[in-house]
Amino acid sequence: MTLTPAAVADLSRSTSDTLYLQIAERLARSIRNGTLARGARVPSVRELARQQGVSPSTAVQAYRALEDARLIEARPRSGYFVAARPARLPEPEPSAPLVASVEVDISSRAEQVLKMAMSPDHISFGAVCPSADLFQQERVRRAVSRAAQRHRDTLCTYPIGPGHLDLRRAIARHALGMGCQLDARDLLVTNSCLESISLCLRAVTQPGDVVALESPTHFSFLELLQSLHLRALEIPTHPRTGLSLDALQLAFDTQPVKAVLAVPTLSNPLGSSMTLADRRRLAQMVSQRGIPLIEDVIYNMLAERDDMRRAVKAFDTGGDVMICGSFSKTVAPGLRLGWVEAGRWSSEVRRLKAVHSGAHTELLEHAMADLLTQPGHESAYRQLRATIAARIDAARGLIAESFPKGTRITEPAGGFILWVELPGGLDSMALFQACLDRRIAIAPGNMFSATERFRHCIWLGLGGRWDAAQQAALREVGAIAGRLLAG
Amino acid sequence: MTLTPAAVADLSRSTSDTLYLQIAERLARSIRNGTLARGARVPSVRELARQQGVSPSTAVQAYRALEDARLIEARPRSGYFVAARPARLPEPEPSAPLVASVEVDISSRAEQVLKMAMSPDHISFGAVCPSADLFQQERVRRAVSRAAQRHRDTLCTYPIGPGHLDLRRAIARHALGMGCQLDARDLLVTNSCLESISLCLRAVTQPGDVVALESPTHFSFLELLQSLHLRALEIPTHPRTGLSLDALQLAFDTQPVKAVLAVPTLSNPLGSSMTLADRRRLAQMVSQRGIPLIEDVIYNMLAERDDMRRAVKAFDTGGDVMICGSFSKTVAPGLRLGWVEAGRWSSEVRRLKAVHSGAHTELLEHAMADLLTQPGHESAYRQLRATIAARIDAARGLIAESFPKGTRITEPAGGFILWVELPGGLDSMALFQACLDRRIAIAPGNMFSATERFRHCIWLGLGGRWDAAQQAALREVGAIAGRLLAG
Repeated sequence: MTLTPAAVADLSRSTSDTLYLQIAERLARSIRNGTLARGARVPSVRELARQQGVSPSTAVQAYRALEDARLIEARPRSGYFVAARPARLPEPEPSAPLVASVEVDISSRAEQVLKMAMSPDHISFGAVCPSADLFQQERVRRAVSRAAQRHRDTLCTYPIGPGHLDLRRAIARHALGMGCQLDARDLLVTNSCLESISLCLRAVTQPGDVVALESPTHFSFLELLQSLHLRALEIPTHPRTGLSLDALQLAFDTQPVKAVLAVPTLSNPLGSSMTLADRRRLAQMVSQRGIPLIEDVIYNMLAERDDMRRAVKAFDTGGDVMICGSFSKTVAPGLRLGWVEAGRWSSEVRRLKAVHSGAHTELLEHAMADLLTQPGHESAYRQLRATIAARIDAARGLIAESFPKGTRITEPAGGFILWVELPGGLDSMALFQACLDRRIAIAPGNMFSATERFRHCIWLGLGGRWDAAQQAALREVGAIAGRLLAG
Repeated sequence: MTLTPAAVADLSRSTSDTLYLQIAERLARSIRNGTLARGARVPSVRELARQQGVSPSTAVQAYRALEDARLIEARPRSGYFVAARPARLPEPEPSAPLVASVEVDISSRAEQVLKMAMSPDHISFGAVCPSADLFQQERVRRAVSRAAQRHRDTLCTYPIGPGHLDLRRAIARHALGMGCQLDARDLLVTNSCLESISLCLRAVTQPGDVVALESPTHFSFLELLQSLHLRALEIPTHPRTGLSLDALQLAFDTQPVKAVLAVPTLSNPLGSSMTLADRRRLAQMVSQRGIPLIEDVIYNMLAERDDMRRAVKAFDTGGDVMICGSFSKTVAPGLRLGWVEAGRWSSEVRRLKAVHSGAHTELLEHAMADLLTQPGHESAYRQLRATIAARIDAARGLIAESFPKGTRITEPAGGFILWVELPGGLDSMALFQACLDRRIAIAPGNMFSATERFRHCIWLGLGGRWDAAQQAALREVGAIAGRLLAG
């Protein structure tokens, strides 16, 4: 990078951005882990500035960010206080014990729900894509136009290969934030994280093979398994700490598991994140058996704590972990680019990519490399996390107020997904249908299992629009659930 | 479209562009089909202008285009004459008769050759991508920047579905040029033509199934079949008129053919184009049997005659033809976008796309829709065809001069690929190796068959660089072949 005057100005702006967000994040952590109790008074602006060695205006910025995230609240003439947490609901139970692997038949259900989720006639809680206003559109536009200008020749040629080295280097640097030392030469750029996972599965399995995965798991994974004629083995998963490694070990001992597909950070739908000790153990387990772990890190940069961002791949010494990511949830959802470092299976994955989808759109690669290496990139992550956290807190509050008694709900440490367990054996398919009548789309829980479990749960994606209509609709889902339960 | 003064100016410029190119193309056709004999004098500029009812300057433009294409030559003080055709070589024999279907094992060979073809250390005749200078880079850049500006929100969101309707409408209009009346609602946008074909194959076959295809055929098709565990049934193919339908009928009668994969226009490598009668018959044949035809139309707009551009899909009444295309060879190779209209299998293909690669990069779709609907788009095709025709003529001339006696060569009616049959049982693998020693990359013929046929042939891709070094290298390939034959 050349340090032009503009770049220097941008850098210093970014440093001060980073500073207030770093302070805000430290305080948020203290609030979330209970060090700062709910309702307690927090230091005054002046005290905070002195404690942290920053200017009062930086301290004010930090408190505003926490206010935006609804973690603290200003009381007139009294100062700032830790916000009362929205009425708390218990979290769901860990999922049921190990069953045999099954063939998957999921897609028709998922298709129907997705159609509703995308329909402009419906208020949707099925959006898998975060909404555009969460991202820095003008920054992305500039990166695209700059790439088209600087690399004009790449608009009219297509390279075959692993992707432009500039982007692979930027991804390697990005992966350092997940504790991974990846060699840019081993990275492969793809069209999406989903494509990366699809390529990995095809590289390490044959039709009929058994793949272990979290339970519940995202229906796109189940659809992939179905399409590749793979059998799903659902492993018990804790809503906070993720995959049960004891259960997985039992599966390794008793079943012909050919691959593990997991989301160790902010798993979808539970939002669970494995402990560091579990990550290390998982890396050892797959290495001992030589069973590939396909690790989806698409949400890692949304986790609210550093330790949760660390990938299992960081503990992989023998190339048994195939790490798959993208920037669709964190940088620019509209520039569809995924990546994969496939460890021992790198050359096979690279070959499959070349055979089935061929060359790359280098324009997008240059734009993304630019975005990833610009100053201010880290602070963009922080702002995104703070905005989403505020939204999730608000949604949890609305659910606590409006859903029937006995409802349980996840409390994910980041991300924009909530998993709600309905009380009294309430059937989510009935709730789904009743909501459709009111033009509200939710995703019923049984879409998240190959074994029709989780019919008493619903999935809520809260990355999309978030306005008064959306909030009223969420209350209405609760009211409908209440009526169904009563009727 | 709003008719701003700039748009009007562009339109009139484009009309005059089109006019001289239309005249040039008519004359080129007369030369190619022999109506205007080689060496004959063509009308003077003044006569041509009068005959065609255009200005003398338009007539001059038309002659310049024909001169660029080396179809006519100016002789000082005598006027324009039809250029002497480069020394003619006979065309290769039609390929060998039907054999049984075989499992495919091709990829290691192809990988090795591709690596050489992409290496900057080599002068390559293995380039599958036409070079950037053949396209209008600034026009593409403007379309990209405009799309990023006008559709800024799409940079930070990703739609799941068939692709933006604007692009699907533009593709439907584009397909009219191939005689196809497609409904935009039935079109699916993909990442590449190769992805379209991969999706079609996966939609209509199971591992072990037999797929009929041209022989020789492009190795990327063979790699696809190998990866999907499909068996290849190679059908005899004529270097000018393509797939032998009698042989295909025999295959239908005697073998469990599950799909046909064909390139009816400018097949790769032969450059053959089916007659209109054959296209109609092929549509009927697949319809009668209910066997899907996967039709690759990636080269159709490069064909020098209108009738060759007409797709088999134009004769499809029952949805048995799955038509796959892209703009990588004709508009902007760097904007990776493919498309497919999969007839009766549309919903299955759409589902597979959603499951395996997910959402779209709408930015590219807007830019491509813009490019396809701009005035001047047709004339860009014409210029591309003329430039490539000149190059191919020159290359055929060099081959006729420098390759050993007995060499045969295709005379494709468009496109940038030549298929050369070496005399005296010369082994193309030996030639490939000998060329590598001189840092020249060619593709040996056996890469184009699952049955190791065509070892006496080589494939030359001439869409890449075309300068003095490249021309000297082509002569050297001929000299090396001569030495191998003598030694």
